[in-house]
Amino acid sequence: MFTSETQVRVRYSETDKMGYAYYGHYAAYFEVARVEALRKLGLSYREMEDKGVLLPVLEYNVKFYKPAFYDDVLTIKTCIEELPSVRIRFVSETFAEDGSQLNRAEVVLVFVDKEKNKPCQPPVYFMERIASFFKN
Amino acid sequence: MFTSETQVRVRYSETDKMGYAYYGHYAAYFEVARVEALRKLGLSYREMEDKGVLLPVLEYNVKFYKPAFYDDVLTIKTCIEELPSVRIRFVSETFAEDGSQLNRAEVVLVFVDKEKNKPCQPPVYFMERIASFFKN
Amino acid sequence: MFTSETQVRVRYSETDKMGYAYYGHYAAYFEVARVEALRKLGLSYREMEDKGVLLPVLEYNVKFYKPAFYDDVLTIKTCIEELPSVRIRFVSETFAEDGSQLNRAEVVLVFVDKEKNKPCQPPVYFMERIASFFKN
Amino acid sequence: MFTSETQVRVRYSETDKMGYAYYGHYAAYFEVARVEALRKLGLSYREMEDKGVLLPVLEYNVKFYKPAFYDDVLTIKTCIEELPSVRIRFVSETFAEDGSQLNRAEVVLVFVDKEKNKPCQPPVYFMERIASFFKN
Repeated sequence: MFTSETQVRVRYSETDKMGYAYYGHYAAYFEVARVEALRKLGLSYREMEDKGVLLPVLEYNVKFYKPAFYDDVLTIKTCIEELPSVRIRFVSETFAEDGSQLNRAEVVLVFVDKEKNKPCQPPVYFMERIASFFKN
Repeated sequence: MFTSETQVRVRYSETDKMGYAYYGHYAAYFEVARVEALRKLGLSYREMEDKGVLLPVLEYNVKFYKPAFYDDVLTIKTCIEELPSVRIRFVSETFAEDGSQLNRAEVVLVFVDKEKNKPCQPPVYFMERIASFFKN
Repeated sequence: MFTSETQVRVRYSETDKMGYAYYGHYAAYFEVARVEALRKLGLSYREMEDKGVLLPVLEYNVKFYKPAFYDDVLTIKTCIEELPSVRIRFVSETFAEDGSQLNRAEVVLVFVDKEKNKPCQPPVYFMERIASFFKN
Repeated sequence: MFTSETQVRVRYSETDKMGYAYYGHYAAYFEVARVEALRKLGLSYREMEDKGVLLPVLEYNVKFYKPAFYDDVLTIKTCIEELPSVRIRFVSETFAEDGSQLNRAEVVLVFVDKEKNKPCQPPVYFMERIASFFKN
C-alpha cells in the first residue's frame, strides 16, 4: 500500500454561493493530490504523458460528509491499495484543519497507449517504483 | 419517474491537454441539466434557495465510457426514478451527437433548512409538482 | 462591423461566496460568445484549429460595472469593429435581463500557424466571410 | 511599494486542448497571489470579508507574452505600487521556471461595505499594515 498527503487551499474562485468549496472542484483537488503522490514516488505524470501513456478517468465515486470553506487548507490523503495493472485505483480522502474528514472518493483510471488509442499495461519504470510498496 | 433532456456545448475552457472535455466538468454539466429538469417541472432552484432550502450534494458516482471533445453538443438525460424525501437522487446520462453514451452518473442531494442548517423534507410545492409523475 | 448576440446562463458552479458570477468566468463566457459569433458567419473555430490555425489570446481588458447572479440569463454582444489581419480584436459587452450593462471587454487574439508555431494571416475563407461586413 | 511572490503549479484541469494553461485561469492565479500577498502583510482576506468588507474586481487588464504548460511551477509577482484608497490596484506578473515573463496584469478592486452595499475606505487596520511600505 502506498499513501501520500498533499495540501490544497480553497481558492475564492472555487467557492459557490452557499459559501462552500463547490463539490465539483474536488475532482481537480484529487488530481493534484494524485500527481503529487506519484511525484513522491519519483514518477512524473507529465513525463509519462509526453512518452505516450495517458491516464484518463474511468470511474469517480465520492461521498461528501461536510463542506470545506474559502481559504481552508485541506489535507488530501491519497492511497494506492492494490498493485495497478491496466487500471489503477486511488482512494482520496479530504480532511479539514481540525482533523475532521470532509469526504472520501475512489478514482479508477486506465493506462492508455496514445498512439494506438488502446488500454495498455503501465510503463515498466512505473511498476518498478510502485511495486516496492507492495512487497511482503 | 420524471425524465428531462438538456443540451450543453463543450467550451474551450472545459477542454484539457488530451483534447477531452475534462472529466471534472461533468459535475457542472449535470447540475445545469438538473436545474433545467426542475425548471420544466415549474420549479426554480434559485427561488427554492432564496426561500431558505439548500440542496447540497451528498454523493456523486460516475462511470465514463467515452470522452467528449471541444464544441461537441452533448445531450444530458436527467432522470428522477424515485419520489424524493429528505434526499433526492438523480440519474444523469450523457450522449454524443451520434447517439452513443459517454457516461452515466448518480447524484444524491439532501434538502437542507438554511436557517437550522439541518436536513429537512422538500418544500410542499416541490413535492406536489414531482408527485404527479409517480402516480399509478 | 460585425455584431452578434449570444445568451449564457450563470451556472451554480460559476457563482462565488459573494453570490456573484465569479469575474474570472467572463473569459469563458466571452469565448463562447466569440465562437457563436463566428458560427453565425459560417465559420467553425473547431475546424480552423483542426486545419492548423490556432487563435490564442494576446490581450484581455475588462471593466466591470455590475455583477451577475446565479441563474441569470446574460446577453453577450460580440463585435468585430475592424477587419482582422494577423490580429483580431473583439469587443464583448454583457447585459442583464433588465437591459443594464454589466461589463465591457476587449479581447485581442493572434492567428498562429500550428506547424510553424508562428503568427500568420487569417485563412482566406475566414477573411472572405468577414470582409463582406466591412464593405462600404 | 509592496511586493510579494507566490508560486502556483498548473493543474491538469487548467490546461486546454492547445496544451496551454487556459488564459482565463490567470484571474484565479492572480487572486491566489493577492491573497498570499495580503497574508504576508498579516492581513486575512477571509477575515476582512467576515467583518463586512468585500473587495470585488472593477477592472482587469492582462497582456500575454507566452503560454504556460501543464505541471509548470509559475512564480507570480504581486505589487501594490500606490497607497490604496477606496480602490486598490495590484500589478501581477507571471514568470516561468526559466525566469522568462509570461504575462503582466493590472487588477483594480474596490472596497465595499457589505451592509450598505456601497464603496468604502479600507479598514483602518488594513491601511496601517500597508502604509508602512509607503513611508519615505
